[in-house]
Amino acid sequence: MSETKIVVACCQLSLAVGDADGNRAKVRSAISDAARAGARVVVLPELANTGYMFADIDELRAAAEPLNGPTITEWANLAAQYGLIIVGGFAESGDGDLVYNSAVLIDESGVRTRYRKAHLWDREKDNLFTPGSDLPPVVDTAVGRIGVMICYDLEFPEWIRMVALDGAELLCAPVNWPLYPAPNGERPTEIVKIQAGATVNRMFIAAAARVGQERGQAWLGGSVIVDADGFPLTEIQLDTETIVLATINLADARDKAISERNNVQTDRRPELYSRIGKPL
Amino acid sequence: MSETKIVVACCQLSLAVGDADGNRAKVRSAISDAARAGARVVVLPELANTGYMFADIDELRAAAEPLNGPTITEWANLAAQYGLIIVGGFAESGDGDLVYNSAVLIDESGVRTRYRKAHLWDREKDNLFTPGSDLPPVVDTAVGRIGVMICYDLEFPEWIRMVALDGAELLCAPVNWPLYPAPNGERPTEIVKIQAGATVNRMFIAAAARVGQERGQAWLGGSVIVDADGFPLTEIQLDTETIVLATINLADARDKAISERNNVQTDRRPELYSRIGKPL
Repeated sequence: MSETKIVVACCQLSLAVGDADGNRAKVRSAISDAARAGARVVVLPELANTGYMFADIDELRAAAEPLNGPTITEWANLAAQYGLIIVGGFAESGDGDLVYNSAVLIDESGVRTRYRKAHLWDREKDNLFTPGSDLPPVVDTAVGRIGVMICYDLEFPEWIRMVALDGAELLCAPVNWPLYPAPNGERPTEIVKIQAGATVNRMFIAAAARVGQERGQAWLGGSVIVDADGFPLTEIQLDTETIVLATINLADARDKAISERNNVQTDRRPELYSRIGKPL
Repeated sequence: MSETKIVVACCQLSLAVGDADGNRAKVRSAISDAARAGARVVVLPELANTGYMFADIDELRAAAEPLNGPTITEWANLAAQYGLIIVGGFAESGDGDLVYNSAVLIDESGVRTRYRKAHLWDREKDNLFTPGSDLPPVVDTAVGRIGVMICYDLEFPEWIRMVALDGAELLCAPVNWPLYPAPNGERPTEIVKIQAGATVNRMFIAAAARVGQERGQAWLGGSVIVDADGFPLTEIQLDTETIVLATINLADARDKAISERNNVQTDRRPELYSRIGKPL
């Protein structure tokens, strides 16, 4: 754990169903830009190979790729070329006809983990994606322990807690937030939930989001890197393609103390929380 | 459940160790003011009978009261007189020499539940309070289902989730937040955590806090009533004694749908969350 102070980049992009080459070129260019800006960890949006607004399962199946397909192969080459850790989302064609809303963590050695989104959002459930049933992974990397989950997963505090209990110091989340109106002056609650998840676990969280319009759906943007105290380190930009960068010290996330006598992990009373794991 | 649209009041007060009569008078006056302003539910701060900055266990024991002591008796009389539901915190002398950081929910019929804080903050652990080991209660009242917890309990998303799973539509929390600096322009994370807890559960949360200085400790204020979408309904005031009021419709919290195909309770995957209830 020699290297603790690192630059994290979240690439906020506009992508589109039906433009595989365009999506791949845009992501490639963003990864290169982030690397040149000094990033060691690069986070990409959800479904970065395909866009999101599929007409139907046939269109999704045609766009999805296996783990050894051209998109992940290219990301692995870029990770090796620039010395990066890349966390990005992609539509994954799995066994048989199944398609997953997946994410990978790639380092210079290749794909370290593949995660399939466990909590599906709205139309994703509608004969499109199959939900994953594995726990969110936490990977030992050259810079520290990094957890991975995807978009709506972040709205389940249980899921965030679990990667923190597994020792994640940085949680990287590809997201694709639909634009909903927030009251005047209020920060979108997608970001509020990330701030809360970061501070109750004393863990950094980096989310890379989508912007733009896609087949009538507007995307929120709002990519953010939040520190272990729960405060954003980056300016929140809602309407523009951008790369947000922050220098973070992962050692902050290894110190779970919040007062002389308090610690966010050892103060838990797990013996009282068994209800959380039981059916409704 | 005839009455769903109700006024909730959070009384933000300055209190002091060693001034039992003064504390009681101040709380009595705040309850009366809230009732005259139309409140049906009144939330009081943590340890509203005693203040917080005890020199030692002897001072705490001398100030603590049993459930049938003068403070709770007075609150019950006020609840009956004004037709209120009151949720307030108090230092409770229990069996033997034990003292608890407790809260009550009182309605016109008297004390409906007594809850003892399960997650103790800092000096509370230092030979002062005994932690409770009961789950946070949810009470069927004339206006709807109301949950109760206290201050640092709110920083455990598991605890908030549990009252929501038990059907709480409104969570009332007596709190006593120490003042910590937040970065310029940032909302205190105590409030961010409440916003997140409200929206991931689609439940209203009302927190009544302390202000002022007490034996060198500054209190944050920040009393807030948050709606089931996670947005504050009240202006956040940090430096002044005040009563914040909001009219809420508890029916909003009975609807857990957040999209055509999503529901914050049925989308959970409890079979994957068993880790939450296990030791570290």
